Amino acid sequence: MADTFAGRKVLITGGLGFIGSNLAHRLVALGAHVTILDSLHKDHGGNYANLAGIEDRITITLADARDSAAMNTAIQGIDYLFNCVGQVSHIDSMTDPLTDLEINTRAQLVIAESVRHHNPEVRVLHLATRQQYGRPQRLPVDETHPLAPVDVNGIHKIAGETYFLLYHAIYGLRVTSIRLSNTYGPRQLIAHNRQGFIAWFVRNNLLGNSIQLFGDGRQLRDMCYVGDAIEAMIAAACADHAIGQVYNVGGMRPYSLKEIVEMMIAITGRGAYEIVPFPSTLKAIDIGDFYTDHTKITRELGWEPLIDLREGMTQTLAFYEQHKAAYLPELFATAGQS
Amino acid sequence: MADTFAGRKVLITGGLGFIGSNLAHRLVALGAHVTILDSLHKDHGGNYANLAGIEDRITITLADARDSAAMNTAIQGIDYLFNCVGQVSHIDSMTDPLTDLEINTRAQLVIAESVRHHNPEVRVLHLATRQQYGRPQRLPVDETHPLAPVDVNGIHKIAGETYFLLYHAIYGLRVTSIRLSNTYGPRQLIAHNRQGFIAWFVRNNLLGNSIQLFGDGRQLRDMCYVGDAIEAMIAAACADHAIGQVYNVGGMRPYSLKEIVEMMIAITGRGAYEIVPFPSTLKAIDIGDFYTDHTKITRELGWEPLIDLREGMTQTLAFYEQHKAAYLPELFATAGQS
Repeated sequence: MADTFAGRKVLITGGLGFIGSNLAHRLVALGAHVTILDSLHKDHGGNYANLAGIEDRITITLADARDSAAMNTAIQGIDYLFNCVGQVSHIDSMTDPLTDLEINTRAQLVIAESVRHHNPEVRVLHLATRQQYGRPQRLPVDETHPLAPVDVNGIHKIAGETYFLLYHAIYGLRVTSIRLSNTYGPRQLIAHNRQGFIAWFVRNNLLGNSIQLFGDGRQLRDMCYVGDAIEAMIAAACADHAIGQVYNVGGMRPYSLKEIVEMMIAITGRGAYEIVPFPSTLKAIDIGDFYTDHTKITRELGWEPLIDLREGMTQTLAFYEQHKAAYLPELFATAGQS
Repeated sequence: MADTFAGRKVLITGGLGFIGSNLAHRLVALGAHVTILDSLHKDHGGNYANLAGIEDRITITLADARDSAAMNTAIQGIDYLFNCVGQVSHIDSMTDPLTDLEINTRAQLVIAESVRHHNPEVRVLHLATRQQYGRPQRLPVDETHPLAPVDVNGIHKIAGETYFLLYHAIYGLRVTSIRLSNTYGPRQLIAHNRQGFIAWFVRNNLLGNSIQLFGDGRQLRDMCYVGDAIEAMIAAACADHAIGQVYNVGGMRPYSLKEIVEMMIAITGRGAYEIVPFPSTLKAIDIGDFYTDHTKITRELGWEPLIDLREGMTQTLAFYEQHKAAYLPELFATAGQS
């Protein structure tokens, strides 16, 4: 892989965010020339602190992917596009669906058009989500499971992915889509509670707070460490036979939310949890148990998750403990940091 | 049905277009107070001539459904919303996908939000399309067929319909969606060739031109007369047990494109046809044979098509012959008409 990326030009859209910045760290280590295009949209996870240690080896374009002119310029001469632009909050998609449409659909169409018209040879890795499947009709969920979204976010993420798959089919664009399951790790936004439960659990454990589990805490999720997810994306981008394909990427095995919280408490020796009823706004879009079948990517690309939850969560909690001023600045920033 | 609609307030979005205006004629006859909201978007089928004979009994709001303020005002106090806003050209969706996104997705989200926030009790009939199914994986195509669009229009129409079905599921909005197959009849735009083959065939037959059939002319379509489609929409809007449901609406039986053209030539005694190779841009998004299974709406609502192709096409061709100055003004408008 070092051979593949050494000296190559890589564009990461949404590269200041959780997945995009972890990818940037890995690609810089592999010798790539990395450019990031990011809008630093308020509340969406982009954070300069995510590039700590590689700032000097990255080119940053502060622009919105919906800006055709900016995208059309950024895409030219690029060898690999990792498309990590996304609004990930399911809750926000219900309260502000038009913004979700802008980021998860319109921006994707602008990106697909910029590739089509300005760099049709670029290798594209598109980031999709298990949210597109909705409430599982069977478990585990493989790539043939119907797409039946339970929230506006799911509707928009489906449209966003389908542009790329359609543009592959019609215009021959060299696209692979990865549907991530629950992904956790360093560099995720933990400043508010609308970007999924893991970040919220991490924040509360970091602060020594009690964590509220909705329902009975037995909901199952598979938990994929971000380092594993990054390796899946890179493996897919390197494989010609992955072009036109969709792959699920998930963790080693499902865990209940209760198990996850208990593990966090055991690792840090801090915090607690309590079981509370589901808030109605969340119950309406809850998907019950979910875990993916990722045997397709194992079979076709040889990828499988290598970091188990205890190891990944230990690294994650240590990272935030060390960098809490950067990730919870309103609570921990000291004079001189703004 | 006269009892149902007499004195009731009906809003038709996209009501100056093909389906919307035919619906307006029918609802006025049933005694409804009809308001139309339409943007008269260039090239999209809106035409004042479509209201000839009922102009004085309709209130027209010239506004774009993407304009939240206009929609939020228009929806208040309405008993029935027939949502006929749409960009129907598959070809245009590929050359100008962002406009297709605006009309077929963003406008639908604004409409759904206006209903949710300003009139959650209104009965909503949403107009969808068989294009959402893509290339048939089995024939005939029923409502459980996967949605696998072959063009950007299909992606956007799926998102547009899914908002309404999701808002029914989550917020209880009283929505039914009708997926129309190939629909033909008076008041369709025939000024250009990008809104489906039927309008283009009608135009060319009207002008005595030869009609080009792509491939071998044997592609099958079911042909639904607009009067039948209108009755399906009205029946669905009247039935409480149709709330939350999706129904296919199609014609009596499939016809090949060659049969359709031969019938038109026989009816008018004019024109000709020729078989030519498929243009590559159209071949890429062609769906092969397509005809729907509409047994669900027959079983649940008692609707079935009553106008066969010969009768419907005879009425259609006579309508355009009589009104050609209004539908092909660049060719037939006389002095004093502009």
